[in-house]
Amino acid sequence: MDLISESLGVNAKGHLTLGGMDVPALAQKHGTPCYLMDEDGIRNVCRAFNSAMRAHYGGEFLIAYASKALSVSHLYRVMREEGMGFDVVSGGELYTALRAGVPASVVYFHGNNKTEAEIRMGLEAGVRRFVVDNREELAVLHRLAKEGGFRPDISFRIKPGVEAHTHEFVQTGRIDSKFGLALETGEAEAVIGEALALPHVNLVGIHCHIGSQIFDAEPFAHTVAVMMQFMAAVRDKFGHTLTELNLGGGFGIRYLPSHRPRSLEEVVSLTAGAVTEHARRLGLPLPALVLEPGRLLVGPYGITVYTVGSVKEIPGVRTYVAVDGGMTDNPRFALYGAEYEVVLPERMEDPRDTMVTVAGRCCESGDLLARDVSIPAPRAGELLAVLGTGAYNYAMASNYNRVPRLPIVMVSGGTDRVILRRETYEDLVRNDL
Amino acid sequence: MDLISESLGVNAKGHLTLGGMDVPALAQKHGTPCYLMDEDGIRNVCRAFNSAMRAHYGGEFLIAYASKALSVSHLYRVMREEGMGFDVVSGGELYTALRAGVPASVVYFHGNNKTEAEIRMGLEAGVRRFVVDNREELAVLHRLAKEGGFRPDISFRIKPGVEAHTHEFVQTGRIDSKFGLALETGEAEAVIGEALALPHVNLVGIHCHIGSQIFDAEPFAHTVAVMMQFMAAVRDKFGHTLTELNLGGGFGIRYLPSHRPRSLEEVVSLTAGAVTEHARRLGLPLPALVLEPGRLLVGPYGITVYTVGSVKEIPGVRTYVAVDGGMTDNPRFALYGAEYEVVLPERMEDPRDTMVTVAGRCCESGDLLARDVSIPAPRAGELLAVLGTGAYNYAMASNYNRVPRLPIVMVSGGTDRVILRRETYEDLVRNDL
Repeated sequence: MDLISESLGVNAKGHLTLGGMDVPALAQKHGTPCYLMDEDGIRNVCRAFNSAMRAHYGGEFLIAYASKALSVSHLYRVMREEGMGFDVVSGGELYTALRAGVPASVVYFHGNNKTEAEIRMGLEAGVRRFVVDNREELAVLHRLAKEGGFRPDISFRIKPGVEAHTHEFVQTGRIDSKFGLALETGEAEAVIGEALALPHVNLVGIHCHIGSQIFDAEPFAHTVAVMMQFMAAVRDKFGHTLTELNLGGGFGIRYLPSHRPRSLEEVVSLTAGAVTEHARRLGLPLPALVLEPGRLLVGPYGITVYTVGSVKEIPGVRTYVAVDGGMTDNPRFALYGAEYEVVLPERMEDPRDTMVTVAGRCCESGDLLARDVSIPAPRAGELLAVLGTGAYNYAMASNYNRVPRLPIVMVSGGTDRVILRRETYEDLVRNDL
Repeated sequence: MDLISESLGVNAKGHLTLGGMDVPALAQKHGTPCYLMDEDGIRNVCRAFNSAMRAHYGGEFLIAYASKALSVSHLYRVMREEGMGFDVVSGGELYTALRAGVPASVVYFHGNNKTEAEIRMGLEAGVRRFVVDNREELAVLHRLAKEGGFRPDISFRIKPGVEAHTHEFVQTGRIDSKFGLALETGEAEAVIGEALALPHVNLVGIHCHIGSQIFDAEPFAHTVAVMMQFMAAVRDKFGHTLTELNLGGGFGIRYLPSHRPRSLEEVVSLTAGAVTEHARRLGLPLPALVLEPGRLLVGPYGITVYTVGSVKEIPGVRTYVAVDGGMTDNPRFALYGAEYEVVLPERMEDPRDTMVTVAGRCCESGDLLARDVSIPAPRAGELLAVLGTGAYNYAMASNYNRVPRLPIVMVSGGTDRVILRRETYEDLVRNDL
């Protein structure tokens, strides 16, 4: 059985394992629904990323974890131990990172609409880089920097006009986007000219993000060409050499066995190679190269374990299997029709001969987790797991229907540990007056 | 200007008002983004509903607020004062209701996949009605009732096969649904036969829910015919007279000025008339009639107030206006493409001559609140309000990007009061270990 992630396996009992540990036993101990994650898998991919960069890139580099994929305190600590930097997109993510002990000197502050309070918070913390999205933000940042006596290093988010072939929701490099400054219209160049004239910001680089869940390396290499051409244009026009190129994230993962993203090694090698080649061709110094993977570092290393409630066979229509979670813990099916692999962790070797639609417990027809997937005929009371839920599940979770959010149990080296407590009913009403 | 809700107005300053109060002044006092709600509007619609039922229905009735639309403590207290019952769909909603002082004797416990813990909680609290969704739930409920020495009153959720013409996500009366028991297949009749043989449950009625945001009265009248025909069939087959008919909710509201739902008076009159007529025709006693409006009781009485950040005009493409909230406080555009009315509360009388797309602050392209709506040309720093956000906004809110959830400020009789505190950064990490 092809299990989408090296963290997953099947043991002698025919049970699903995560990080070598028996998933039914973990579910029994911690209760369902719950998220389970494999810390060793996360550490390994971080190491692989850094080591591929060291092997293929001659310049400085930083891998900054895009923490919107999953922002919890323990994860910042793990990633920091592995030498990651961090991409944060809000005061809340910055707060969580700093509180977990992350030095602001490795934090990139993104966001298309940072508030004044957030910009002030970033200035006072001393974040490594403000990735400025637009003119209004530049003006506010400069005013606040001047008031506070700061001179932050900044980069600009650029729309390179590259479209990676993914779902409409996640195309962000094209011109019709709420993010960044357009190249084609001259907007990016104009704003850079303005920034260079401002005494209280120090422009060091440019950033882009071309989409999500990209399986090929070519879009990144093509983006490098566009972005470095622009770095050369900035040098030629303003006599200012940008020293940092931040290509954002978007590295695809396997949600289904049929998904075949290029290997990390290949993506890094092609991308780093493109940067090196274009720097030479354009006579630019090798820029500090920043990549911001999010999903790739956590998605494959998480699963969600549910208990089956009702099994509703509608003759000639479909079979609905209801579980004790749903769009509250994983809204990605409702939002994007995102597909996930579904298994019965207690019966991994049984034939997958029954087509079912997995329904959540919310009072809403759209609350589904998977449509028409094949699993062994499910029975009320047994476990059902959705794989590859480490990214954008807890991060996007809600309390719709006043359903408490799930705990995260982290496994590592054969031990398990709760890194996020299950919400209680008391938590739900904490701010009710 | 046609303002979708009687709670809204424009004052002499040209400012938007809610419940007669100046919205910019409220935003100044409480900060943005925030939800503002009009308690008097909510009380008025509750009274209108009860009074229409008294005028048009000769039997017993109960209007049960579907609290999934907005479940916060203060609202349960307001609704209870107005004589409402309550529809809850989870242990969390039941907990919130009971804690707010709602007697369990007016609570209907819904849900397609109640857990054992929730069923036990409902039994111990003494909820008025378990609305049983399926066979497995019936078995668990009966077992737990027996163990605890209870004999709860129950009804069954039926799929009447009626399709109201709404968005795919909200068609729930059809046979291809995760909810309820099918009529056509004989499933409903079979399960009712089984329930009548169980000593620890007392079957008193049937329930259905045919969809959401229904503008006409005819779907309800048609549903009454189907449901009462089935009540007669149950009487004829089992010699058991069901005494309660629960038609659920789905009553449409105006999100846009172009929306023209039938008046509450007409919907109640036609529906109650249909029940009366079919009862006479079928020789059934007038059933206790239960209706479960959610959106109708809160949606029109809430607005969300934001501050404009960047205004990004992309020549020949579109203009993006970024605000300090987004899919975290209102995921309905991202989920369903739901349309809302957008206004600038400080300039209600300026010409609406600029087409904009309202973007949220989340690091996600799909984070929009409205696409291609006409408002006065917006400026950074001014207020922007989305109208009709009282239902399914706070209820579905998330902490995506670790954005704290908004407060709810309730206005009533010219005074304002925070009924839900704004989340703090500390709240966000409360369960992180």
